[in-house]
Amino acid sequence: MTRRFATTLLACTALLAGMASAQSNELLNDAKDMFKPIPSVVPAVKDNAVTGEKVELGKMLFFDPRLSSSGLISCNTCHNLGMGGDDNLETSIGHGWQKGPRNAPTVFNAVFNAAQFWDGRAEDLKAQAKGPVQAGVEMASTPARVEATLASLPDYVERFGKAFPGEEKPVNFDNMAKAIEAFEATLITPASRFDQFLEGNTKVLTTMEQEGLKLFMDKGCASCHGGVNLGGEGYYAFGVVEKPGADILPAGDKGRFAVTQTADEEYVFRAGPLRNIELTAPYFHSGKVWDLEQAVAIMGTSQLGEKLADNEIKAITAFLKTLTGEQPKVIYPILPVETATTPKPEAMIAK
Amino acid sequence: MTRRFATTLLACTALLAGMASAQSNELLNDAKDMFKPIPSVVPAVKDNAVTGEKVELGKMLFFDPRLSSSGLISCNTCHNLGMGGDDNLETSIGHGWQKGPRNAPTVFNAVFNAAQFWDGRAEDLKAQAKGPVQAGVEMASTPARVEATLASLPDYVERFGKAFPGEEKPVNFDNMAKAIEAFEATLITPASRFDQFLEGNTKVLTTMEQEGLKLFMDKGCASCHGGVNLGGEGYYAFGVVEKPGADILPAGDKGRFAVTQTADEEYVFRAGPLRNIELTAPYFHSGKVWDLEQAVAIMGTSQLGEKLADNEIKAITAFLKTLTGEQPKVIYPILPVETATTPKPEAMIAK
Repeated sequence: MTRRFATTLLACTALLAGMASAQSNELLNDAKDMFKPIPSVVPAVKDNAVTGEKVELGKMLFFDPRLSSSGLISCNTCHNLGMGGDDNLETSIGHGWQKGPRNAPTVFNAVFNAAQFWDGRAEDLKAQAKGPVQAGVEMASTPARVEATLASLPDYVERFGKAFPGEEKPVNFDNMAKAIEAFEATLITPASRFDQFLEGNTKVLTTMEQEGLKLFMDKGCASCHGGVNLGGEGYYAFGVVEKPGADILPAGDKGRFAVTQTADEEYVFRAGPLRNIELTAPYFHSGKVWDLEQAVAIMGTSQLGEKLADNEIKAITAFLKTLTGEQPKVIYPILPVETATTPKPEAMIAK
Repeated sequence: MTRRFATTLLACTALLAGMASAQSNELLNDAKDMFKPIPSVVPAVKDNAVTGEKVELGKMLFFDPRLSSSGLISCNTCHNLGMGGDDNLETSIGHGWQKGPRNAPTVFNAVFNAAQFWDGRAEDLKAQAKGPVQAGVEMASTPARVEATLASLPDYVERFGKAFPGEEKPVNFDNMAKAIEAFEATLITPASRFDQFLEGNTKVLTTMEQEGLKLFMDKGCASCHGGVNLGGEGYYAFGVVEKPGADILPAGDKGRFAVTQTADEEYVFRAGPLRNIELTAPYFHSGKVWDLEQAVAIMGTSQLGEKLADNEIKAITAFLKTLTGEQPKVIYPILPVETATTPKPEAMIAK
């Protein structure tokens, strides 16, 4: 190799790198307009100061199966903190081995969603937390039973007092939900590779992943899946352009229609938040799709009216896998021991 | 008060304290003959070196619901590390919401038991660990399904390789059980107040607790409930002297008879280990008794042929509550994400 040729080669390489870098920077700027990184600190929660006492109490409650009438099911049963914050089942199994109607959404980063549940019927996590505890197919308990349980456990009584200082009767169902919300606000997954990219380190994403990100924005995915959680903010018909088959979109579940009773909200659901999506299969509210590439393809036809090419699907999927952040490190809580007045597990006395 | 009176009073107090101390020392010596403290370090396990790699892998497996065919039930479901190592149910709820036949024993300090299960049918924890995974009323899986699951998860494959170095095919059902046994060997609860007493600090037990300990030995409880675990070592008929009612001792469960087919082993069970007993209600293999004092009273009549006086029951119960040790501090494991070849949850495909 002559010196001149070597110099030219070096110059070309530098030029190409410069072009790639310029492209990356442009991509970064576009991405910054549409997405926000997960913050590295616990976010504030509306009407519920996230104190250390509340978080620790909320963690205990999150793991306590005595919030269910059977004494078997805790929040963590369906929102397993070791499995991406959900249960990796199509739809959850609840009280009496009943099959729940929809796929359990992840609890991770849920604090950033505009509203909770697939149909957004709970405005925040403290409203959400009251749902499964009472749902007959989930934990099948009642506020009265929960309050009796908590009040029977001196350690909880003390902790409620400290978490809700100055309240006359701190042990109550609302405060249970608030403590759980405070704990859940800590379940965030910062520092994903995508977030590192958003913060300016463009080299952390491969060319293919950057291509996937570009497609994700150019094709229109990001118009529904934007913001901090790449989703979880707005409501859209599943099948904007073309309805998926009845296996994936069962006719009986009309989504947000049940909340608003508005005809044009039939089969409308909250856009799924996509953080940690590779950890939370199976996908969609019906939980019928296990393969992320297949899910991307379905979104292409149903929401964009476009049959995405194989390489496009692969690139978008590669990008989606960069959304996996640091999973929360949680020390398993030691729960208070029952007393003579603690309500007995119901599955047991019923027989 | 004259100086002479004060001096006499002081001397009397010292004398009484000396007598009490002498009594405590005698009690301590007697106790040391019958019991051993929980060691502060993880004990060795037969044919299974307890390595860091094995313990970490075993912890993941212990919490992984994919060892069950439903994908819902893990070891921790019935041996909840936040609830004294058991589920606080009369008998466990398993696959399909089936009711298990016997009360789930605690996993804490189980490594010190001479054999596992209420009838001692598993010689150690690695043999035990294979039982519930396969039992139709518990996790309802099979060795083949478990091996297929583990082999489909690259993180597990790598960890099995490191935990069982030099083995040709380290991902297998036996090694699953060995890894779980290694983790369970770490689930010990040292430093209970009773252990501090055994180690010479006699002042750590109140007079009533010491009285309870004395009764526990003098009445004969300690002949079956001795050693490290105050039980878990020998087999005895439930009802040595007088059979409890059929609610507590159901006629259909003949205990160790099913293992040995020996007529004189009808209704014979392993003496329950009493460590952390205040955390593991309800009691007995039938799980029918929630109150520890009532359990003590029943043991008095059934095993000792003696109606214990109320103050004796209270003292023994007070002593039993000194057996609660430091609960294990466990960081909740992050489990490997499923791949395309991971077997799907069965409860879901069955429909």
